[in-house]
Amino acid sequence: MSQQGTINVAVENIFPLIKKFLYSDHEIFLRELISNATDATLKLQHLARIGEAKVELGDQKIEVKINKDAKTLHIIDQGLGMSEEEVQKYINEVAFSGAEEFLEKYKDTAKDSGIIGHFGLGFYSAFMVADKVDIITKSFKDEPAVHWSCDGSPNYTIEPADKKDFGTEIVLHISDDELEFLEESRITELLNKYNKFMPVPIKFGMKTETLPKPEDAKDEDPAPTQEVDNIINNPNPAWTKQPADLEDQDYKNFYRELYPMQFEEPLFNIHLNVDYPFNLTGILYFPKMTQDLNVQKDRIQLYQNQVYVTDNVEGIVPEFLTMLRGVIDSPDIPLNVSRSYLQADGAVKKISSYITRKVADKLKSLFNEDRAAFEEKWNDIKIVIEYGMLSEEKFFEKADKFALYPTVNGSYYTWDELIEKIKPSQTNKDDKTVVLYTSNKEAQHSYVNAATDKGYEVLLLDSPIVSHLMQKLETSKENISFVRVDADHIDNLIKKDEDQISKLSDEEKESLQKTITDTISDASYTVQVEAMSSDAAPFIITQPEFMRRMKEMQATGGGGMMGFGNMPDMYNLVVNANHDLVQEIFNSKSDEKKASLIKQSVDLAKLSQGLLKGEALTDFVKRSYDLIK
Amino acid sequence: MSQQGTINVAVENIFPLIKKFLYSDHEIFLRELISNATDATLKLQHLARIGEAKVELGDQKIEVKINKDAKTLHIIDQGLGMSEEEVQKYINEVAFSGAEEFLEKYKDTAKDSGIIGHFGLGFYSAFMVADKVDIITKSFKDEPAVHWSCDGSPNYTIEPADKKDFGTEIVLHISDDELEFLEESRITELLNKYNKFMPVPIKFGMKTETLPKPEDAKDEDPAPTQEVDNIINNPNPAWTKQPADLEDQDYKNFYRELYPMQFEEPLFNIHLNVDYPFNLTGILYFPKMTQDLNVQKDRIQLYQNQVYVTDNVEGIVPEFLTMLRGVIDSPDIPLNVSRSYLQADGAVKKISSYITRKVADKLKSLFNEDRAAFEEKWNDIKIVIEYGMLSEEKFFEKADKFALYPTVNGSYYTWDELIEKIKPSQTNKDDKTVVLYTSNKEAQHSYVNAATDKGYEVLLLDSPIVSHLMQKLETSKENISFVRVDADHIDNLIKKDEDQISKLSDEEKESLQKTITDTISDASYTVQVEAMSSDAAPFIITQPEFMRRMKEMQATGGGGMMGFGNMPDMYNLVVNANHDLVQEIFNSKSDEKKASLIKQSVDLAKLSQGLLKGEALTDFVKRSYDLIK
Repeated sequence: MSQQGTINVAVENIFPLIKKFLYSDHEIFLRELISNATDATLKLQHLARIGEAKVELGDQKIEVKINKDAKTLHIIDQGLGMSEEEVQKYINEVAFSGAEEFLEKYKDTAKDSGIIGHFGLGFYSAFMVADKVDIITKSFKDEPAVHWSCDGSPNYTIEPADKKDFGTEIVLHISDDELEFLEESRITELLNKYNKFMPVPIKFGMKTETLPKPEDAKDEDPAPTQEVDNIINNPNPAWTKQPADLEDQDYKNFYRELYPMQFEEPLFNIHLNVDYPFNLTGILYFPKMTQDLNVQKDRIQLYQNQVYVTDNVEGIVPEFLTMLRGVIDSPDIPLNVSRSYLQADGAVKKISSYITRKVADKLKSLFNEDRAAFEEKWNDIKIVIEYGMLSEEKFFEKADKFALYPTVNGSYYTWDELIEKIKPSQTNKDDKTVVLYTSNKEAQHSYVNAATDKGYEVLLLDSPIVSHLMQKLETSKENISFVRVDADHIDNLIKKDEDQISKLSDEEKESLQKTITDTISDASYTVQVEAMSSDAAPFIITQPEFMRRMKEMQATGGGGMMGFGNMPDMYNLVVNANHDLVQEIFNSKSDEKKASLIKQSVDLAKLSQGLLKGEALTDFVKRSYDLIK
Repeated sequence: MSQQGTINVAVENIFPLIKKFLYSDHEIFLRELISNATDATLKLQHLARIGEAKVELGDQKIEVKINKDAKTLHIIDQGLGMSEEEVQKYINEVAFSGAEEFLEKYKDTAKDSGIIGHFGLGFYSAFMVADKVDIITKSFKDEPAVHWSCDGSPNYTIEPADKKDFGTEIVLHISDDELEFLEESRITELLNKYNKFMPVPIKFGMKTETLPKPEDAKDEDPAPTQEVDNIINNPNPAWTKQPADLEDQDYKNFYRELYPMQFEEPLFNIHLNVDYPFNLTGILYFPKMTQDLNVQKDRIQLYQNQVYVTDNVEGIVPEFLTMLRGVIDSPDIPLNVSRSYLQADGAVKKISSYITRKVADKLKSLFNEDRAAFEEKWNDIKIVIEYGMLSEEKFFEKADKFALYPTVNGSYYTWDELIEKIKPSQTNKDDKTVVLYTSNKEAQHSYVNAATDKGYEVLLLDSPIVSHLMQKLETSKENISFVRVDADHIDNLIKKDEDQISKLSDEEKESLQKTITDTISDASYTVQVEAMSSDAAPFIITQPEFMRRMKEMQATGGGGMMGFGNMPDMYNLVVNANHDLVQEIFNSKSDEKKASLIKQSVDLAKLSQGLLKGEALTDFVKRSYDLIK
């Protein structure tokens, strides 16, 4: 009693679906129709090249025209055209992809002809914006021209037409709620967005061109002009060419072409070009990073065979490279799929790791070829590189050879150079090499000074994610640790074996510690009296590395320890027992004088750490004006 | 010779398309199949209610089961079921929506039964993850049970089955590259994501429940347990209830249900409930804003008839409200369409403006009902309100009545109250009312002090977008202007008619101006010697409002004037001709003393403005230690 059958698709139900949901953006119809026109043109060129089409081609182009009175938009090509039989096959049968069949038939020769169509559904997107669509078409095979017409019902009529030249004209009778697509400015916008680099010239209206003056013209004569076709696209954009055929200036010009509103030149570019195991071309640019929040508007653009698809490359390009600009063109990236699906796609994963590798290789060669130039660019590119080192293990391994660690004195070391340089002097008694750094050489100036005075190197690490990178380096490298210059006083940051002799006994230190603690009476400061060099500052405020870094990591997300973000800041007030001023405070007989000296000294120490603020600062300034008067 | 015809959809071509592109996320299949099961259950309940189904319903539920050995996933409902004829109609004809037909037939009574299905394509999503799909189903009408089976080819077989109870079981033979959907953890994750609030109980496995101990149990006896169905959803979430039936605690509990990882309680909620001209229910919460960057993970969730759709509500909820949390449930929002399309959709526009209005009304009533509580919340909600005032004109008009302007002294004024309060004292000689503000009352403490000493009110405006809001207020209100307290010295900020008498003549002022300019020798400071109160500070550094604000606006995007962002900071150094210290400097005979007094004074003025940094600060601190020693 078992039956068999074939699932049936009810056309009267699916057609409205296709019209409504095929593309979420109505404006896409123009891209689709121009893609079809481009396919038809490239196919004919291909057939002519291999001798199967005996036609005179000339300069083929695609024309887009608006007729405001008739409320029609026209897309006209000089491509293959269709016979009546072909209209029946390609238009009346939905989801019958002409392009696929063509590629199958001519698979050996058609590979490089750049054919776009894939599922053959694009044409129906016309019904998203038009009440009625006409096709007037004549095949290059010199069969009678055909006029097809459909109001999307899905009933159609087909009749002979009197078109003379081969090619296809699509006429969209724009529906009343889509009249924007009869505006010249709107169509220009769309052509610029989707078709700026398509491989067949696209004409939209005419423009006036200035001609050179004839030799005998007088100065006051106006230059002669002529009306020429307004071609809106560049059919041969830089990324379709071979790197060997391009000069540095060509890359810069193309950058301007891509981003006409960008005034800064890019720092350098990476030409992508691979055809196995996937097809991908493109040019990526490292832009000069600015504070401007609008920067993100100019993003990497994704194309397929020179047709613009999107500027959302999330999931295709590794996240750390989304700050770059440029173009990627690959027919192998599945469209109309969600980002989470993309990320799981095998081909896309390969593309992403290819791009990572190419970027790493380019950076390596820039570093090798002209290190001085690379150092000069470091500040602009470091955020990308550091982010990449954190997020992609493979990139970390490669970048370890060219990532730079700049010092406050303007030297740039690679990791290996840095360790070689500092190991002899900056290794502590526990045999750990201590990398000193500052996050802000102005704000931490006195601490930086104390370190450089000792002959130590101090790195300037000021990226927002640097605390994460340090954590990463501390776990991947052996026997090193990062410490910010204000994490302790300099003798404690890199603890050697020798001890300073103290001018105060342990009991005296304890008593002074108590006096100062009572005087400042602030629980966020822990007072430590220590024997330091008499040249060092009398009072220093420090903030232990571990807790500060945990807080920073939590603030920038994805790391640190839970709960540290809300801990109050805790400081140490280190008092130099060997400094004259401290001796004077300790020996002072007047409690009032003692207190006033301590107060002013602690205020000065707070100033050095940027901690004297608000009312306390106003009072300090007032007191100091009185003091100098 | 004209022909007519109907466009044909070739099923062998469209079926792979549906399988591949219907949904971009494969995981969606489970949502779709459970939605179908829910529909079938609700339909049967509806028919029973109106007397058309004579069946004993009991506690209907949906069961999800995994069989790892057979590599199958089962979705079992106790709903309508299908007869053979219905399988032919609803399953074998793609895009024939059973739900639509049902709604049409029972349109008067079915409105509130919450039926989900719309296009009837959801079932086919099963083929995204399964090689083969079985349907075993028996209609509630007591017709023979049917077993349908299809490998997606699109050929199917259909034969009798021996199912006893009405309802439908879908069996997915999971394909080898989708084996994740046989993992219990993955299915739990999906059920939690998509089905947490669906209206029919969903069972997934069993769980152990602890029972109360019998009265005669000893303390050491273990509590008895029993195995019960593990129901993963809450079929009656708070938003489906009437606001009148909910207590404050119910809203808080639902917040915890929605965001189990949120530990902070929400500040307040807004219950949305409208059925004309569109259907929408939901609850929005104002969260306590934190610095935590992960905050954006818990976003507003969009449901349709209790089925989770997305947590990307861009385009549906006005942008300024996307910082809120909660749930929106509306069957009227078109799915599977792009955001730009959504924004153009009329229904969605209405929904968006309804939400804006409800939020404004709620804020207004909170303000009216308990102003003290509203003031307390202001700091947490201001960024949303200020952003709304900037981006939605309608919201601006409403918010103008409850937006608060806090002062440094802890008062909170509405705009009208503020102007009433300050107009008498803070109107300048050009009849403009000057609103004084500080962006940081700690950093600008001495300037704030100078203003409050005069009896002026100083607002504390510290949101990142406040410069844009001020610009907006200055253009929408009449005769007012905002000036930051450090834009000039206090007598100039609100210029009255009276002039201070100067202790220095104009020539003397000019000479002093030249001496000081030469001594500090820094082009970023313009020295102005002015007659001020002798109580005022001797030296003050100010930064003119206009340029500073332009720079700020450009930094935060979307405003300000092109190019200001890159201008260097320019300051005025205002010297108080009437201050004793300045007199002393002017009268000093020693050039060296003069220079040292000027230098120390200017350093102190810079300190007050946070401008003494780096080496200059280190030097100042060293000098000052020497001074007190």
